[in-house]
This record gives sequence, structure tokens and C-alpha cells, in this order.
Amino acid sequence: MADPDFDGWSCPLPLRRYERIVMGHGGGGQLSAELVEHLFLPILGDHDGEMHDAARLSLEGRDVSFSTDSYVVRPLFFPGGSIGDLAIHGTINDIAMRGAEPVALSVGFILEEGLPMETLGRVVEAMGAAADAAGVPVVTGDTKVVDRGQADGLYVNTAGIGVIPDGVDIRPRRAEPGDVVILSGTLGQHGVAVMSKREGLEFGTEIRSDSAPLHGLVAAMLAVTKDLHVLRDMTRGGMSASLSEIAASAKVGIEFEEAKLPIPGDVAAACSFLGLDAISIANEGRLVAIVPPGHADAVLAAMRDHEHGRGAVVVGSVTDEHPGVVVARTPFGASRVVDLPLGEQLPRIC
Amino acid sequence: MADPDFDGWSCPLPLRRYERIVMGHGGGGQLSAELVEHLFLPILGDHDGEMHDAARLSLEGRDVSFSTDSYVVRPLFFPGGSIGDLAIHGTINDIAMRGAEPVALSVGFILEEGLPMETLGRVVEAMGAAADAAGVPVVTGDTKVVDRGQADGLYVNTAGIGVIPDGVDIRPRRAEPGDVVILSGTLGQHGVAVMSKREGLEFGTEIRSDSAPLHGLVAAMLAVTKDLHVLRDMTRGGMSASLSEIAASAKVGIEFEEAKLPIPGDVAAACSFLGLDAISIANEGRLVAIVPPGHADAVLAAMRDHEHGRGAVVVGSVTDEHPGVVVARTPFGASRVVDLPLGEQLPRIC
Repeated sequence: MADPDFDGWSCPLPLRRYERIVMGHGGGGQLSAELVEHLFLPILGDHDGEMHDAARLSLEGRDVSFSTDSYVVRPLFFPGGSIGDLAIHGTINDIAMRGAEPVALSVGFILEEGLPMETLGRVVEAMGAAADAAGVPVVTGDTKVVDRGQADGLYVNTAGIGVIPDGVDIRPRRAEPGDVVILSGTLGQHGVAVMSKREGLEFGTEIRSDSAPLHGLVAAMLAVTKDLHVLRDMTRGGMSASLSEIAASAKVGIEFEEAKLPIPGDVAAACSFLGLDAISIANEGRLVAIVPPGHADAVLAAMRDHEHGRGAVVVGSVTDEHPGVVVARTPFGASRVVDLPLGEQLPRIC
Repeated sequence: MADPDFDGWSCPLPLRRYERIVMGHGGGGQLSAELVEHLFLPILGDHDGEMHDAARLSLEGRDVSFSTDSYVVRPLFFPGGSIGDLAIHGTINDIAMRGAEPVALSVGFILEEGLPMETLGRVVEAMGAAADAAGVPVVTGDTKVVDRGQADGLYVNTAGIGVIPDGVDIRPRRAEPGDVVILSGTLGQHGVAVMSKREGLEFGTEIRSDSAPLHGLVAAMLAVTKDLHVLRDMTRGGMSASLSEIAASAKVGIEFEEAKLPIPGDVAAACSFLGLDAISIANEGRLVAIVPPGHADAVLAAMRDHEHGRGAVVVGSVTDEHPGVVVARTPFGASRVVDLPLGEQLPRIC
């Protein structure tokens, strides 16, 4: 008991009988999902009944997307990015996965007493540069300071608002049998880049984070058709978590071919060395799109024309077989079930 | 140097030559203001040129208010509230100080590995109850977990969106000579309640936090007149920080009479014992209003009719003398200048 005032709180639904928070509760996998479904939603309410990173709400007749994320990545700077640009890109991307155009961001800092001003300055400069490049202003903010040893340098929260264009309705439940599964680019770079920096590992070449804002790519896809069914940035839990959640929400099966997955050689080597599975590693500038078959070719072409979709590739399809289950087809003709990861292979990478 | 990648970042403007973050940078006083003015705004941009806790932005023709705050209060539970309701009330209040009607909140948790699930559950229940009572739903959220020892139990960030009614334009620069200064109720309860609990102090009676949502009170005031000039919830830095910022923004003088300040006897006793100044202690359910003289009586009456404004009282006025300076008139006919506090007398009370 942490507080003498406790008088017998009981969890609305069992949480795998975990009596304490473990790292995996923040990993974007099964433990995270249980925390949301069994604790947060029963108490705070389920706003729109969709397991989506961004809420959709009507504001005086305008549909807007609203989302938040906290960032606790360690180290604060890594090849290809920092906690600053990650915090800008991550929330922009959550909003964009609703098809919305992001219009404003908030920033909340939790700073550790003793943090060098220079470190804070460089993080804020990275945020400013990322916000400028994305064309989405930071309009409000807050700063708190906690005692030495209580925030590992600094944590950042960003929240954001976007405007959803008329006629756009992108959400996991819209995945339908026959839909095509498209990845926007390579898998695994962000997680491996952060992990390598943190642990001082080298894999021949420097693996850089894929951190990038994806709202421009989404706008280019929506210019082809407003009828995109599902978009998901493949952050915590990676592609396997994204596809598992879509399959579960829409009660459809999803199949993909392992041989088509765009996993860079150095990422594959690092994964092999570290015992990781590239499809479950967080990305920060990659999305998976579930697109009606009639539009797939045109959407794919539009993605490849965009700087953040050059490596776009069709990897699979939605099926009415094995509803709720994601299946990988191996190069040898076998197939295996892809589960929602339990926790997170790599803690604190975003 | 915290990171070997640093290559000579220099602060845009001098920050009192602090090379490291100190607790006072999160205190809502001069050090916080310097961090905002000399570091955040030069890099991230000054959205609307107003030192206000909530941004005002136009979303497809609708004026909305958008704000964020992180909460790091210690202990998590204290007489009259907890980090959970504080996080709901605080962001609702920031939005309401623009005259906006809050419509949606986001919640971001940073949890420490090992946190008892029961503690999290009780915090979330407090948030849910506060959101329900205020009628403002939590629509989206995020959870991160950090290693044991890195988050003092848990931190919470909330962000929120509100809709500003047509014709309402509430901001610090609108304070004008002749305007009346009204407090909505007692000063100092929240800070002293948290401090007493943290330090195990007793002052005869239990001093309870004033934590409360103020959007209903603001709506009642706006029903009298849309021409409210300034509203400010007197959080970090208390009444003295709020009035100092208003005086500086509007380039007006503000005077108040010390004898009229509603400081409860037990708070005054605690302040005397602890060497604190009640006018600089954070409140979480109190506002100061700067109102045109022609509307002051009616606004005061409307406040007293509302549950969160029962103790409303006129304490002073705006003057064209000593622009930028707040002056307290003492019961003995003397006067003293009230400065923006340097840091925060009581760290981590919100």
C-alpha cells in the first residue's frame, strides 16, 4: 500500500493479476492493451469505441482529431533524431492516422533538477526545427521541475489537434476482406538505432532512426482516394502490434508475406544478434495502410512519389479467414500466427 | 555536457547564467518566466504574443482554447484531492480562463516500474470522478513506463480543448485603469494542504485543497457580461504571480488592500509558522477576475451565487499609476511593492 488512505480499491477487471506496474505495461503490447481495456476505459469511459491512438470528436460541426503521447526515450539523442523531434513527429503521426491535417501542438516538459540548460536547449531546438519542417506550430506549453534523480533528464508530452477532411473516415474497424496491406517503408530502424546508441553496440554501418512526420504522406494518399480504410503508424509493438490490433478490431484475418517485408540488412543483422523480431520493433516514421483493392495501385504510386513513402510496398491482404488473427507466410510455404507482443522487446525507445 | 554530440549550443538570451535547471524553473515565478521568454519562445515561436496558460486558435472559423499541464505533485494524495483530480481541474481551468467551454481532455501517464496497481487505480478513479463531475470527458490517452526510481510513482499530463463563445476576448492585456479586481475565494489552501501532508505537519484543523473546476463559475460570470477583461487561475506563484503577470502584460498598475484578502485563519497560522507568504502560494480552484467597473457588482453577485465563488470579494483595482507594478496597501496605510516570486516557495505542489 503506497498510501494510508487506501480503503480497498479493486481493479474493475483482472489484470493478469499483476499487482504492480512492470515495464511491459508501457510497451504497446498485450499488457498495455489490458491496462487500457481493464483499467482506463472502465473508469474513464470509452470515447468512441475504437482502439485508436487519436480520438475523433465533433467541435461545433467540424470533425477534429485529438491525441497525446509522452516521450521517455533514453538516451535523449540517438542517430537520426532525439526526444525533441520524436515528440513532434509522434503526435503529428497519431493525428494523421485519422486522416486529419494537424494544426496545433502543445508541449509539456518534466525536467530533472540539475539538467544542463544546454541539453534542454538542444531538445527544444530539435522540437522547433521538427515543428517548422512539418508546418505544425507549438502553440502552448508547460514546464515542471522534479527533484534530482526523478526524471532521468527530461520527459516530454505533446498533444495535438487536427482537422479531419469531409468524407474521411479512417479507423481500424473499416478493414475489410480483400483490402490490400501496404507498408510505407522499412521496418525496425528506429528501435534498433535507439537500442544501439543506448547499449553502445555497433553493427558495421550506423543504423539511423526513421523518425519523420507522416501527415504529408497521408495527404498525398487521400488525394488519390478519401476511401482509405485504416492507417496506423507502427510505433510501440511495431508492425505486429498494429496488424494484430486491426485484425482484432475489425474481426478480420490479415496475411502477409515475410519475404516482402522491407527489413534493411543491417537491421536484420542487429535483430539476429540481439534476438529481436524486426516486425515487433517500434518505428517512428512508418505507417501501414489498409486500402480497398481498387485503389491500391494508385495509392502505392502516390506513396512512392512522396519522400516519406519511397520504400512503399504491398506486403499482404485482409481475409475473411481466421478472423482476429494475423498470419505470416514464410518463404518456404509455411505459415505462422503473429501475436500481439506481450510487452516490449525494447523498453523506453519512444 | 550530457551528450557527446553537443557542438556548442548557446542560449538565445541569457538565463541569469543558470547552467542547470533548478527547482525554481518550475515554480511559475521569475525563473519560469525567463525560461519561457528566453528559451522556449525564441525557439518555438510566440503563438499569440500573450503570456497565457492557454492558446487561442481559430479552427475552421471556430475560436478554440487549447492548453496543457503536467502534474508532479508529491504526495499523490492529500487532504481535499489527489494528482488525479488536480490534473483534470488544472487543465479545465486553464481553458476556462480564456472564457472557453471545455469539451475534451487527453491524459498521458508516466508510470514508475513497481507502482502498485492499486495506486494507479485510485488515481484514475479520481480522474474519472473529477471529469464526470465537471462534465468534460477524457477522450484519448497514453501510458509510458520508466525504470524504477525514475518517476516518483507517477506523473500525469493533461491537455484540453475548449470552445470560446462569440464575442468573448479574455486576456491579460485587456486590463484597463479603473477595472475592478475580484478574487473568487480564499487564498493559500491548496499549497498548504499539500505541504502539510508531505511534511507531516498539523495546524490544529486539517487544511484542505481548494482544487475545483472553474468553468461553471466562468460561464456564470459570462452570463452577466461577455466583457470580462482578464481571468487567471492563481496556481503556481499564487495571486502575486497572477497579478504581476497581468500588470506587466497590460502595462498597468494594480493595487489591492491586504486587509480584504480572504486568507483563512489556519492558512495564515501555517504561513506564519512556515515563513510563507499566502499571496504567493498556489491555489487550484480559485481565480482572479479583472472586470470593467460598470459590471463589477453584477459579476460579484453572480460569483457569490455559484458554489465555487461563494467567497468572492473585491480586493483592489487597476490604475494608470506605476505601470507594470503591483502594490499592496497595508492596514496601517503603508504600501509595498509585490514582486513576481523568483521561484516557488513550495516545490511540487501541482
